[in-house]
Formats: sequence, C-alpha cells, structure tokens
Amino acid sequence: MTIKDIARKCGVSVSTVSRAINGRPDVSDEMRGKILAVVEECRYIPNNSARDLVRSSSDAIGVVVRGTSNLFFSQVLRAAAQKIEARGFRMILRQIESGADEVKTGAILEREKKLQGLLFLGGRFDYTRQEMSVINVPYVCCTYTNWFGDLGEEDYSSVSIDDQSAARQAVEHLICSGHRRIAAVVAGCSDRSISELRYRGYCAALEAHGIPIDSRLVAETGSFGMAEAYRGVEELLRREEEFTAVFALSDMMAMAVIKALTDHGRRVPQDCSVIAIDGLPLSNYTIPTLTTLEQPAAQMGEKAAALLLDMVEGGGMPRHIRLEARLQPGGSVRRVIKNRE
Amino acid sequence: MTIKDIARKCGVSVSTVSRAINGRPDVSDEMRGKILAVVEECRYIPNNSARDLVRSSSDAIGVVVRGTSNLFFSQVLRAAAQKIEARGFRMILRQIESGADEVKTGAILEREKKLQGLLFLGGRFDYTRQEMSVINVPYVCCTYTNWFGDLGEEDYSSVSIDDQSAARQAVEHLICSGHRRIAAVVAGCSDRSISELRYRGYCAALEAHGIPIDSRLVAETGSFGMAEAYRGVEELLRREEEFTAVFALSDMMAMAVIKALTDHGRRVPQDCSVIAIDGLPLSNYTIPTLTTLEQPAAQMGEKAAALLLDMVEGGGMPRHIRLEARLQPGGSVRRVIKNRE
Repeated sequence: MTIKDIARKCGVSVSTVSRAINGRPDVSDEMRGKILAVVEECRYIPNNSARDLVRSSSDAIGVVVRGTSNLFFSQVLRAAAQKIEARGFRMILRQIESGADEVKTGAILEREKKLQGLLFLGGRFDYTRQEMSVINVPYVCCTYTNWFGDLGEEDYSSVSIDDQSAARQAVEHLICSGHRRIAAVVAGCSDRSISELRYRGYCAALEAHGIPIDSRLVAETGSFGMAEAYRGVEELLRREEEFTAVFALSDMMAMAVIKALTDHGRRVPQDCSVIAIDGLPLSNYTIPTLTTLEQPAAQMGEKAAALLLDMVEGGGMPRHIRLEARLQPGGSVRRVIKNRE
Repeated sequence: MTIKDIARKCGVSVSTVSRAINGRPDVSDEMRGKILAVVEECRYIPNNSARDLVRSSSDAIGVVVRGTSNLFFSQVLRAAAQKIEARGFRMILRQIESGADEVKTGAILEREKKLQGLLFLGGRFDYTRQEMSVINVPYVCCTYTNWFGDLGEEDYSSVSIDDQSAARQAVEHLICSGHRRIAAVVAGCSDRSISELRYRGYCAALEAHGIPIDSRLVAETGSFGMAEAYRGVEELLRREEEFTAVFALSDMMAMAVIKALTDHGRRVPQDCSVIAIDGLPLSNYTIPTLTTLEQPAAQMGEKAAALLLDMVEGGGMPRHIRLEARLQPGGSVRRVIKNRE
C-alpha cells in the first residue's frame, strides 16, 4: 500500500493526500477526514524517513537514556516525555547500555534526525570541551553535572540534585539519630562518578561532626550492582569492625545491604540502621521500609525538558538547576543513645 | 566537519573515505587505518540517515520493547542484542510505554530503517491478521504468543514460556506443600493478557487437585503495579477469608504482597506462603528470599534473535519455541500439615 493507492482510492492527487497526512492547512476538514479514514482503513504507514531527510527544520528532540535497567530513569523519562509532547515537539528516544558512549549516540542521532535539542538522561561527570564539540544543538545533562570535567558553566545545561549535599544530609540524619560508627557501601571513592560525589558527602558529614573517617568502614564495591553491595556488607562484617549504621549509595544497593545484614543475623533497624538516596517506589516495599533521600524524579524530567525547549525555541540560556532531595522517612533508621566519649 | 574535510585532510577522494568508513574491501588496510585515524581525531560522525535511504538492502534488525520499567525485559534485551551483533546485524531499538502500540511502532521503523526483521519484546496476545498485515518482514513475538488472536501458527513466530503451565506449576508447588486455601493476586482474570493465562493456570492446578475455585480468594488488581498488588492483599485480608498461601502474578507484585502481609502482622512464610513467576535478580533480595518460577531470560532473548535471523537469512520458517520455567526455591513457601477432609 503506497501513497498512490491511497490517492486513487480517494479520487484525489498524491499531493492532497500528503498535505492531509501532514496536517497542512490547505485541505478542507471534510476532505482531510475522508482521506484519514481511508489511511486508517488501509493501515497505510507514511514513510517518515524520506520526509525527515527533505525537511530543513524539524521538531525532533533526542533523548539518550544511559542504562537499560535503571528504575529511577524510567520515572524521569516519563515526565520529560510528557513535557516534550505538551510543547508540540516529537521525542526520539535511544536507550543504551550503562557503559556505552552517550555523546557519540547523541551526535549520530542529531545528524540522522536533524534534532533541535538533546537531553542526556544519565552520563559521565567528566566531559571535556573537545569531546562535547560534536554536539551542535543545545543539550541538557539530566541527573548529573560536569563536576569532574572542564566544561564552563555557559557551555552546557544541567538539572540534578546536589549529590554531595544529599549524601551529607543522609549521613547527618544518622548522626542526629545518635550513630557515630557509620559504614558506607559505595561503588568507588575516586571513580569520578556519582559514587565519588556521594562518598565525599559522607566524609563531609562525618568531618562536620568531628567523627574521624575510618577506611575500614568503607566498602568499595566497584559497581552499582546488588550482588556487589551484598558482598560489600559481608566484607565489612568479616572485618569485625563495629558499626551501627550503613549509608548505601542507592536504593537498590540498600535493598541488598538490608538483605545481607538480615542474612547474617543483624536486624534492621534494631541492630543496624540503613539509609540511602533515590526514593524509588520500590523503597516503600522493602522490609523494613527504606529511609531514603528522595530525588524529585518527575520534577527533574519536567524541568530538564522545559530548560531544553526554552533554549531550542530561542531566548533560553544555558542554566544549572539544583533540585532538593527530601528525606523520605521509613523504618530502617533507629535512634540510639549517643555515646559521649 | 564533513566527509569532504576528511578527504582533504587525508589527500584522497570522498568516495575512498566513504569506502573506508563503510568497511568495503576495495581499500588497502594501510589507507583505511590512516583514514580512520583522521576520522577519530576529527570526531567526524557519518550521516547514516542519507546512507540508509540510498541503500537498497540493509542489515538492520528492529527491536521494539514495550514497557520502559520492566526489569525482566532488560535481561532479555541484553541477550538478544548480543546475538544480533554476533551474527553481523545492526540492532535498532525502540522503547515504548506499556500501553503504546508496538505494531505501529514496528511498522514505521520497518519503513524508516529498511528493516530485515522485527523482534517484539512484550506485546498484546490478541493480534488479528488484518492488524499484522502492516508488517512486511519476518517478526518474532518474544515473551508472548497470539493465544487470544486469530493468527495461524505459520503466520508468526514466538519464543516464550508456557504461562499457563508455569502458573499451574507454581500453584501445584503450594498444593504439594500442603496448602489448600490459596489466594491469587492477578491483574485480571479475563483481560486477554498474560494475567488471564496465568490465572487459568492457577485454576487448572486447583481443579486437578479437587480444590474448588473460590472467587473470594482472587484479587483482581487491574494493573501490574506494586501499589495495586498491595491494596489487593489488603482487600483479601479485609474479607476475612482464610488463606495460607498467595500466588502472585509477578516477582514485583509478590514483593508488594509480602510487604502487605508483613505490615498486617502475617509473617511470611510462617503464617502465609508466597510464590510468583519471573525469577528477577531482585527476588534474591526480598525478605524472605522469594520462591519463584524462573523464566530463562537470557535464553529467551538469544533464541528469539536466532529464530528471527534464521528467517531473515532465508531458509528459516516461522516457529514457536516454548521454554521451561524452573522452580527457584527461596524462603517464602512453608510446608504445612495437610488437612485431610
């Protein structure tokens, strides 16, 4: 079934069918209704590829999502998609593995689809100027910043929480609940990723309260996986270091931390408290319910899309929006009597 | 930076650069190395869109994933992607919301990218022949079948478990452990989805063991969500019907079931057993560890891709592969003394 067949069936020209399909105003409503009914009946699918190539300006916004099994990103994505559509743009989505190159994927997409703008949902914190020079449209880093890179403030836009301060807030909640021997389960302490930033927040909280940082209480798991987090806790327990609380990098890792503690006879929160960052819906279903710093996922997606579209439509300048992570109290943190040493 | 700039820098013609980039044999290895080094140095991104349109035959396989936050699909996808690449094809991925139209997405992708084949990861069980006539390339339904539709066996291919028999196996495991009052938490009993099939398996197991089906023990939640599963259990408890075990539609729903039971003072498995289907990595981190029927995710993705590529490369006929779901014993099912009535 081609556009010619549709035109023949309707008794009109090919260009009239094309105008009707593409929503152009120079077709009467009656004629458009008739043509679209035939298109529907014949299940005709227009060939957008040819159209995309011919069009000089498009309404396409690319979204590159890094990580195919990140539950947090799927919440952010939904909000971003709604905003993009509500403002009359078309979203073109690419989902890539967590280790893949989001910049190259974005650059290819930009050329293939004549994008007006790019939203990166997850990515590296250490882009260089040279590296980002392949992107020729406005872009927004969503959920991360260029903390470890050499981009200037005016070179890019970002929407995220302040990861360092969210981690500090989480650990201070433990300290205010009387804990002083606080372990950390992180991916890495100096990996130039979100893990390093959150680890720095952990250290900042301890330092601010005069608690020495004890490297024997830090488990570097080398990944964001649950199995690695579980083994990290086993390693901490094997060292026989005393600790009454654990700061976990993410909700998923915290779920594995709670499991490992429980499996080794430590009750949460009676024997050990656990806190994390993310606020996934899942965190409401762990036993006990996870106390966590909630990232405003929907707001993050919406603001990132709005910021990008402001730049695309002209007038908007690169900006950096920091959102607040809020404590979502659960049942995994217990108040203990403070030891005055 | 255009292909002309690259050609100028290398001192060769545009067509030589093009042949080098596209891996054609009529360029010396030395020349290819030199050209690719310049491409890399200049961070040149080829415009594939124009190339795709000109090429008459392509090596593109489309994969449409339905549901953006399905952890099971991300495991299947990884295996399928590996197989597609290992056999020298290019994967083009589209992720759509769980309510979106995967057939239309696939049909558009087929035309835009001149696909050789399509893999649907998740989709409706009730396609009609007319509906599927928009797909003109071989396709495989991965994780589902046309159980409720009117396609012939020879019209399409599929790779999945037998959902009805997996559910029956799960419920029989409960029956063999001495349970007779078994509740079900499903999305729907007659929604022509995977939920209806698994509900039928639940009924079949009860019937085979002479246990009457009691509709008061069935919670239809209307969705695959965790919040709805939680409320479904609360509704069961409110009815004050006695039950000693719950069959949950999926691992994620089972996690919410365990939470609801625990929150209402029923210990799992001492007071109530729970079993599900999926075998997500997550099911190893619930408390207690979930007893579940594991779908072979990696095998499913690999077999679906292999079946599709056999058809694409000629020779392969439409086939239907049923894989075994295997019991993954956890700690959520308790053996009880059988009441002999």
